[in-house]
Amino acid sequence: MKIIELKETVTASNDRDAQVLRQELTQKGTLLINLMASPGAGKTTLLERTIRDLKERYAIAVMEADVDSDVDARRVEKLGAKAVQAHTGGMCHMDAGMTRTALEELGEDHFDLVFLENVGNLICPAEFDTGAQKRVMLLSVPEGDDKPLKYPLMFSVSDVLILTKTDVAPYFDFDFEACKQRARKLNPNIAIFEVSSKTGAGFDAWESWLENAIQDTAAKN
Amino acid sequence: MKIIELKETVTASNDRDAQVLRQELTQKGTLLINLMASPGAGKTTLLERTIRDLKERYAIAVMEADVDSDVDARRVEKLGAKAVQAHTGGMCHMDAGMTRTALEELGEDHFDLVFLENVGNLICPAEFDTGAQKRVMLLSVPEGDDKPLKYPLMFSVSDVLILTKTDVAPYFDFDFEACKQRARKLNPNIAIFEVSSKTGAGFDAWESWLENAIQDTAAKN
Repeated sequence: MKIIELKETVTASNDRDAQVLRQELTQKGTLLINLMASPGAGKTTLLERTIRDLKERYAIAVMEADVDSDVDARRVEKLGAKAVQAHTGGMCHMDAGMTRTALEELGEDHFDLVFLENVGNLICPAEFDTGAQKRVMLLSVPEGDDKPLKYPLMFSVSDVLILTKTDVAPYFDFDFEACKQRARKLNPNIAIFEVSSKTGAGFDAWESWLENAIQDTAAKN
Repeated sequence: MKIIELKETVTASNDRDAQVLRQELTQKGTLLINLMASPGAGKTTLLERTIRDLKERYAIAVMEADVDSDVDARRVEKLGAKAVQAHTGGMCHMDAGMTRTALEELGEDHFDLVFLENVGNLICPAEFDTGAQKRVMLLSVPEGDDKPLKYPLMFSVSDVLILTKTDVAPYFDFDFEACKQRARKLNPNIAIFEVSSKTGAGFDAWESWLENAIQDTAAKN
C-alpha cells in the first residue's frame, strides 16, 4: 500500500479540472464515488462490507484520504482491494487535482469502481468537486437527525444519503422520517438508504443502486 | 437570541489577536472554553446538562458557531442561558476575530463562563486559536477509538478530552484504554473524562474540573 503526501492544487479552475477528470473516468468505464461523512460515521466499515459483497464481480479500488494515519487503507487492503492512502497535509478536503494524483498512484490496472473515502468532515468536502461521477454521503444514527439543518450544502450536493448504524437505533432518539424530510427538502432527488454494516441490513438496496451506477458508467464507455 | 453573520477576519496575526483576547477575558474574570468535536458528538447536549448543573452558581453564556441553522442556540436558550448564534459563512472554524465579534454580541453583562461551541469538525477548529483560555474536545463512543490516530492535531491542542455517550458503550466496540493511550501519546497532559449526558455519569469529575478552571480565572482577575 502506498502513502502519498498531497498538496492543495494551485488552480482557480477546480470545477473545470473536475469536469475533465469525470469525462476521462467515464471514457475508461470507471465509476468514481466520492464518499463523504463525519468522522466515525462508518465510511470504512461500509466500504469493507460493500467490497466483500461485490469484489468477485467488479474490479474495485479505494483511495483513502486522511489528514494523517493509514489505518483505513490497511483495513481495506486486508480484503484484497487495491488501496492508496492520501495524506492531505492538514487540509479538510480533496479537490480534483489531488484526486487525479491519487488515481495515478493506483497504476494502470482497470477498475470498474473506485471509492474516494474523503476526509471525515461535513463541511469542506461538500465544497469541492473531485471529479467523481457520484457523491455519496453517510449520516450515522448516533450523530442525530438534525444534521441536514446544520450542514445543508453536504445534503444538497449528494446523490445518495446512507443512514448508517441502524442497528443501534433503539438506543438513540433518531427520527428517520424527520431526517429524510429534511434531506429531501434540500435535495428532492437524493436517494436514501438505511443500513447497518454490522448486520448487513439494507445492503441489498444500496448495492443494487451501486451496481446500476457501475453498469451505467460501463454502458457509456 | 441573536444570529450574527461572520466573515473570516482578514489578519495575518490570528495568534496575536487570540493572545490579546485571552488576556482581556482573564482580566474580566471570564473563562472562555473553546468546545470542539465532530458533528453529533454531543456538544450541545453536554452543554445543556452542564449549564443546568452550574447555572445557579455562575453566570454562563454560550456562543454557538455553525455553518447554518440556529437549532443549537435555541436549545441552550431554553435553559435560561444567554446565547448567540454565529454563522460562519461556510467556513469550518472560528478564529480570534470572529470570536471577539460574537463575544461583543453577548453585551455588557459579566459572565464567569462562556462556551464557544465551535463548528462540528475535528480538523479546522484545531488550527485556529480563538482566544479561549481552555480547549475542550469531545469524542463520542460511536465515533470509534481510532480518532486520535486520524486527527492528531485536535488531540494535541486540547486541554481536555471528554469521551461522551458512554451509556451506549455496550453496543459499540470502543476500547477506552486504547483511546486514552493514543490521546496521551499525543498529549501527555490532557485531562480525560468519560461521561454520559443522558444518565449524568461522569459529570461530577468534568464539572469539578470546570469549576476549578472558573475559580482559577476569577483568582487572576
